[in-house]
Amino acid sequence: MHIDMSYGSGGKQTTSLINEVFVKHFSNPVLQKMEDSAVLTVKEKIAFTTDSFVVTPMFFKGGDIGKVAVCGTVNDLLMMGANPKYLTAGFIIEEGASLTDLEHIAASMAAAAKEAGAQIVAGDTKVIEGKGGIYINTAGIGEIEREGISISACKEGDIILLSGNLGEHHTAIMSHRMEIENDIKSDCAPLKEIVMNLIMAGIDIHCMRDVTRGGLATVLNEVSASSSCKVEIEERALPVSPQVKGFCDILGLDPLYMANEGKLIAVVAQKDAKRALQIMKESRYGENAAVIGTIQAGSKVVMTTAFGGSRVIDVLYGEGLPRIC
Amino acid sequence: MHIDMSYGSGGKQTTSLINEVFVKHFSNPVLQKMEDSAVLTVKEKIAFTTDSFVVTPMFFKGGDIGKVAVCGTVNDLLMMGANPKYLTAGFIIEEGASLTDLEHIAASMAAAAKEAGAQIVAGDTKVIEGKGGIYINTAGIGEIEREGISISACKEGDIILLSGNLGEHHTAIMSHRMEIENDIKSDCAPLKEIVMNLIMAGIDIHCMRDVTRGGLATVLNEVSASSSCKVEIEERALPVSPQVKGFCDILGLDPLYMANEGKLIAVVAQKDAKRALQIMKESRYGENAAVIGTIQAGSKVVMTTAFGGSRVIDVLYGEGLPRIC
Repeated sequence: MHIDMSYGSGGKQTTSLINEVFVKHFSNPVLQKMEDSAVLTVKEKIAFTTDSFVVTPMFFKGGDIGKVAVCGTVNDLLMMGANPKYLTAGFIIEEGASLTDLEHIAASMAAAAKEAGAQIVAGDTKVIEGKGGIYINTAGIGEIEREGISISACKEGDIILLSGNLGEHHTAIMSHRMEIENDIKSDCAPLKEIVMNLIMAGIDIHCMRDVTRGGLATVLNEVSASSSCKVEIEERALPVSPQVKGFCDILGLDPLYMANEGKLIAVVAQKDAKRALQIMKESRYGENAAVIGTIQAGSKVVMTTAFGGSRVIDVLYGEGLPRIC
Repeated sequence: MHIDMSYGSGGKQTTSLINEVFVKHFSNPVLQKMEDSAVLTVKEKIAFTTDSFVVTPMFFKGGDIGKVAVCGTVNDLLMMGANPKYLTAGFIIEEGASLTDLEHIAASMAAAAKEAGAQIVAGDTKVIEGKGGIYINTAGIGEIEREGISISACKEGDIILLSGNLGEHHTAIMSHRMEIENDIKSDCAPLKEIVMNLIMAGIDIHCMRDVTRGGLATVLNEVSASSSCKVEIEERALPVSPQVKGFCDILGLDPLYMANEGKLIAVVAQKDAKRALQIMKESRYGENAAVIGTIQAGSKVVMTTAFGGSRVIDVLYGEGLPRIC
């Protein structure tokens, strides 16, 4: 079964698509009411965010567009110290898309939302001409568990931790497109356990950021610019798996600029750094966490290379890998 | 200037696009922080919704995709008795789209949000291959001003009001596509004034629904199904402008199935119907409001035709007009 333009009419076919795919997989009392909006009770302080997902291929090792669409928004909420509670899902579907694919995507969205403890409470479907592609927007609401976490709150002497190996999502997508056989899986994951464990342990977190499009280099430059500081990192300290390293060496890629979908940096007060690292390592998806650098007075992002030299790390220029998320 | 794939990288070009178009037009303190999520303070009871917009052409008489994208979500919040407060905007942009068009769209989103009293507090941009199209998702949060409004709350004896003329958005889009010259403008508008005036006046509103894709026929069928009731309407009572009526007569269209972007039905207690009609007529975008029918025991939607006959009105089958919103 394939989707045609009639599924976007707002009439009979739209209703059947909503009931047979979305309501079935996202099933919860709020969504089932089929009102124009979901009515919810929340805490007074919330985080609110959105992300659209256009990743191609839609299915890849370690995940699919549905899993990325939920994890991306869930992680953006977590980065502000918020516990993800409610999600919306907007689908833009190209004519010719397979209903079976759509069901798999909906199922994996439901699974990722469940792992993150969030409910998908509202949705929308549009159909456009095209070649069977599926685009997904998610928006999310989280309840703030810790206030004051901000990209502009990093201070001289703070320690930068990275939650795990770089470049796995990027490598998985690229391998699929280039038809290169390997076992590298996307790292796509909801980072709720790491974040909640850090907050619960009272770690003095100044900033968190998930390391997605643009890679670690771009994120660290955002930290440097927003907190008016120098970011110093050690190349030797950056966790990269031997498989991804091999892949990068052959293709001339730099893990610093590669996209991840289940990694974060946390900038924490020096006194808490050791404990934060331990907590990360003991949390799901954090086993390869590492201390990668420090915040200093000054500006720019500077890396001490494996050979002891030092180079300025700029943000990503140009197109990177199109449609990576 | 046109947008190419590099604008979707997450690096330098993405940042310049965000700053020069979105931050410029949506400007507000929350957005300017450029965090992963917006941090907000809200009332405990909120409404949360999402909608994606794929309307083609992107610019048409009476509005553009940006205006529709804001009004659609704002109206969905209002229909649940919520005052629209915060919006997110997710852009999926096809390579080749014009930066000037994107600026016009952003400016009209900002204007519509301002009229509705809402702020655009988070956004996202992706770039895909294609022919210069722009797709927009909006999600919104509103604070509930009146509880208990629901598609399933209609009761026998209730009166159904429609806020104005049918079919104008549909006709405007179709005229543009068919290159038919006329003065018919899309009715696209934020319906905040009508809704807040009804609530403030203490009208006993049982249900509200905006009349978009699928048209009035589809919305009334949703009322009938969700409230387990018969919906009776009078063809003579349906407000349709002479221009739209002429357009429909020539092309064999039925205003009952045509999309609107600035119309709502309100189902109110009989005792308040007269007052509700007066309030609608005195509110912005409500001057052509009319009482169009009643809620009865039973099932289905039945219309008394202009000739005194009676016919069952089903939901929209098939594709209607693709990409109407």
